[in-house]
Amino acid sequence: MSVKIHYFQIRGSVEAARLVLADAGVEFENVPLALADIEEKKELYQFGRAPVLEDSDGTVVSLPGPILRYVAQKHGKAGGSAAEKAKVDSILELVSELRDHYSKMVYDEEFGDDEKKEEVVGKYFDSAFSARLSQLEAILATNNEGAGYFVGGDATAADFAVFDVLDNLTRVKEAALEELPLLGGLKARVAERAAIAAYLSSDKRYTAVNGNQRG
Amino acid sequence: MSVKIHYFQIRGSVEAARLVLADAGVEFENVPLALADIEEKKELYQFGRAPVLEDSDGTVVSLPGPILRYVAQKHGKAGGSAAEKAKVDSILELVSELRDHYSKMVYDEEFGDDEKKEEVVGKYFDSAFSARLSQLEAILATNNEGAGYFVGGDATAADFAVFDVLDNLTRVKEAALEELPLLGGLKARVAERAAIAAYLSSDKRYTAVNGNQRG
Repeated sequence: MSVKIHYFQIRGSVEAARLVLADAGVEFENVPLALADIEEKKELYQFGRAPVLEDSDGTVVSLPGPILRYVAQKHGKAGGSAAEKAKVDSILELVSELRDHYSKMVYDEEFGDDEKKEEVVGKYFDSAFSARLSQLEAILATNNEGAGYFVGGDATAADFAVFDVLDNLTRVKEAALEELPLLGGLKARVAERAAIAAYLSSDKRYTAVNGNQRG
Repeated sequence: MSVKIHYFQIRGSVEAARLVLADAGVEFENVPLALADIEEKKELYQFGRAPVLEDSDGTVVSLPGPILRYVAQKHGKAGGSAAEKAKVDSILELVSELRDHYSKMVYDEEFGDDEKKEEVVGKYFDSAFSARLSQLEAILATNNEGAGYFVGGDATAADFAVFDVLDNLTRVKEAALEELPLLGGLKARVAERAAIAAYLSSDKRYTAVNGNQRG
C-alpha cells in the first residue's frame, strides 16, 4: 500500500507535506474526498476533519500540522539534533500562523471582489504577513548567511513549508519578496531541487490552491 | 543549569509544558520577562516572542507548540510508537485551536463587561468550544473506554494540554463538562497524579491565567 492523502483536490493545508514526500522520493496517492466521507468513514476521519494521511503501514494521521511533522520525522526532514528539530518546529509554527491569516484573507468576502482585492491584500500584509516574513528573513540569515536552508546543511520541512506559503503569497502580491532577498533565494533553491521540480510539473501538483478556487 | 522558562508571570500558553515538566519530575525555573527583553536579548528571543524555553544543555526553543512538543519528546510524554506520537500530536493541535479561541474570548472587550460576559462565553462555546470538546470526549472514549488517558496506558502531553484547557474553560463556565463525563474524569485523574498535585499547590503555579488578569 502506498501513502494516501485523503483531501480535497487542492494544494491547501497539506501541500507542504506533499512537498516533503516528493523531496524524500516517497510515492503518494491523492485520494479525493467527498464531504460526506468525513461523517461516514469514522475509522479514517478520527478527528472529523481532512486532510488525513494514511501511511503505508496503516498509521492514520489527522490535521495538517501533525501530518507535516509526521512525514518530516519519518523521512529525515525534521532536523538532526534535538536543537535543530526544535528550530524546524518553531519555523513550522510561524508558517502555520502565516497560513491561518492567508486562509482568512482568501475567504474574506472582499478578496473575491476584484475592485477591493488589492486593498485587502495590502491590509493583510500590513497586519500579519510583513512582520512574520521579516522574522523569517532574519532567521534564515542566521544559518549559512542565508545562502542555504533554514536549519543545518540541507532542506527540511521548514524550507518546504516556507516555500509553500511564499508561493501562495507571491501569487496574490507579485512583489511580496522584493525586499526579502534571502527568502526569494530560498524559494528559488527549493523549486530547483530535482525531486521538487519534477513534482511541481507533475499531475500530482493540483492547480487549485484553495477550496473556493481563489488565491 | 536548570530548565528556564522565560515568560510573563502567568499560566498562559506555556502552562501545558510546565505540567509535563512537573509530571516528569524535571526541575524548572520561571524567569519573569519584561517586554523590553524580547527586543534586547536577540540570542534568547530568536523568534521575537515569548515564551522561550532554555533547556539545561543550552538548547533554546521558541513558541508554545514547539516548547510543548520538545519537552514531551525529551521526557517520554509524547507517546510510544510513531502512531501514538501522531495521535498525541493531533490532540495537541485540537487543544491549540481551543486555546486560540479561548484567548480571543478572554481578550474580547465584552468578556470584560460583567453584564455581557455570560453571553460572550455562551457564544464562544457555541461557535468553537462545544464541538471540539465533544470531539475530544469521543477520542478519549476510543482508548481504555475513556477510563484512562488519551493515548496508551499512561499520561502524555495530550492529557496535560487537555487538562489545562479544561481547567480554563471550567473557570469561565462551571458546567462546561456536565455532559462530558469522560473529560471530567480525565481532568480529575490528571489533577490527582502525585507530581501534578504537588505542582498545582506549589508557588510555581501562577495564579494569573492570562496577561490581562481575566479568565
